[in-house]
Amino acid sequence: MAIAVVRNDNMTDVWKDALRAQAPDVPVYGPGEDFRESDIKMAAVWKHPPGSLKTYPNLLGIQGLGAGVDFIFEDTEIREDLPIMRVVDPYLASDMAEFVLAVATGMLKRLQYYKYNESLSLWKPKTYQRFKEVTVGIMGLGKLGLAVAQSLESAGFSVVGWTRNSLPKVRFEVFRGSAERTRFLKRSEILVCLLPLTPGTRGILNRDVFKTLPKGARLINVARGPLLEDGDLLYALDQGMLSEACLDVFHTEPLPQDHPFWKHPAVHITPHIASVSDPKSVAPQIISNYRKLIKGAVPENIVSRSAGY
Amino acid sequence: MAIAVVRNDNMTDVWKDALRAQAPDVPVYGPGEDFRESDIKMAAVWKHPPGSLKTYPNLLGIQGLGAGVDFIFEDTEIREDLPIMRVVDPYLASDMAEFVLAVATGMLKRLQYYKYNESLSLWKPKTYQRFKEVTVGIMGLGKLGLAVAQSLESAGFSVVGWTRNSLPKVRFEVFRGSAERTRFLKRSEILVCLLPLTPGTRGILNRDVFKTLPKGARLINVARGPLLEDGDLLYALDQGMLSEACLDVFHTEPLPQDHPFWKHPAVHITPHIASVSDPKSVAPQIISNYRKLIKGAVPENIVSRSAGY
Repeated sequence: MAIAVVRNDNMTDVWKDALRAQAPDVPVYGPGEDFRESDIKMAAVWKHPPGSLKTYPNLLGIQGLGAGVDFIFEDTEIREDLPIMRVVDPYLASDMAEFVLAVATGMLKRLQYYKYNESLSLWKPKTYQRFKEVTVGIMGLGKLGLAVAQSLESAGFSVVGWTRNSLPKVRFEVFRGSAERTRFLKRSEILVCLLPLTPGTRGILNRDVFKTLPKGARLINVARGPLLEDGDLLYALDQGMLSEACLDVFHTEPLPQDHPFWKHPAVHITPHIASVSDPKSVAPQIISNYRKLIKGAVPENIVSRSAGY
Repeated sequence: MAIAVVRNDNMTDVWKDALRAQAPDVPVYGPGEDFRESDIKMAAVWKHPPGSLKTYPNLLGIQGLGAGVDFIFEDTEIREDLPIMRVVDPYLASDMAEFVLAVATGMLKRLQYYKYNESLSLWKPKTYQRFKEVTVGIMGLGKLGLAVAQSLESAGFSVVGWTRNSLPKVRFEVFRGSAERTRFLKRSEILVCLLPLTPGTRGILNRDVFKTLPKGARLINVARGPLLEDGDLLYALDQGMLSEACLDVFHTEPLPQDHPFWKHPAVHITPHIASVSDPKSVAPQIISNYRKLIKGAVPENIVSRSAGY
């Protein structure tokens, strides 16, 4: 009985080490190691190659190694009866809140603009806005969205929120569903996207949204790349509907070398680092889920196949 | 009786307009206009050419157009009996606090590093630090330093302070004078300089300071350019004593095209915009000082020639 770690990046060893340190009695393997595939009871995955989990005939469950599990649902070769779990990292929400605060405040002080000008040895002061003059609109009011809202509010920003379904109890103004989306967008001078990626949200950041925002608005996408129509963003920037965008997530990651975002001065690229699950801090819940699976108990943080998150 | 506005930048007209709007009855002139130099009772100045105020024989006082007045003291041809006033802008401290928050949070999330990598189409994630893991050391605990400390603390940073003389009552730990400077520096993972420029502080940011800071520390200078020994900073960065520096102020502004800071990837340049006195919000105190001067009353916010600020 063992765990297989399957990732698309260079972090496999870091995760294996964290799991082994947490539970020295549990065998943990990665691709290329010598083990029997029939021994694997749980796959711990991050953007694994679709179809690759079929090689483990005795899987009892699939543990995602991040908060988002969309890449697991997109693998149509996973058995429908297998439970899928996500990570609930105590730092995931606060790290995200710190990232969005850094980006939003930097936008108002135009720090990315000045760093770009630096490459041209260009001294060109521009005016700045104060935090209290700016309203940030947050799309998606789950744990991350609420943490971001609280951090921005306490720094002095005005905040409004938009949610597709539930209506959380908060002090700031919340708009709900497609009926109230236009009113929400018209208020959002900085639009922060924290929606999960589902068939219903794919491409939601599109030209219709950008032309509804206040002229010259700013976009921060820290959720998933396919929420955004890339071509519509470039159009909106070039038309002046938007003035800049900070993107941490992309359709393909790493962002391909020839993608026009790289060379666009108003697009600020960060390499999916807004909030990163820390192997050490989440290893205990992964090992706990593994032990539950092999005992026949119900693991924690199972996601819903019907909701898509 | 009139005011002359004398500046070294392209903002003279903006300031004249703000003063005229505040007091339509007061003549306000700038260089190149047709007026009698003997009419000028107050010079309102920002980095005026040294010696240029001698042309006004009937001056009653000199009004600086920012919080710092070092450039006035450096003009040795100003009559010693003239009162010198600085601006106290209600937003000057809060704007500074917002700028330092944006820069410090951006440093932890490595936003300037990623913007630089963008120019190379380089996708290279690095780890980040959380706010609560980092101690910011603030040199200079005047109004601006205290506002910066409060903003950083409420965002979650640990804060320590250093002051040359006075010991303000604050909740964070404060070190005083040269005797306690080393202990302060050893705690400062991000060093923020908010000291006034005086003969005693010139060049205070030097190699001795940089080698005392924790290895890989970061520097934010938002006070005055000559507080920093430019060559020592480049040395400290290249030796790894410091990992990056955000500079808003320079010995010569605009920063000369051939200065090595422009091309250094670990130096982040902003064009003296951390906190800018807003002509509209400070026009009332300038007009009030002018009216006091011509009545023979004592103007507000006179600075001390002996202290140098």
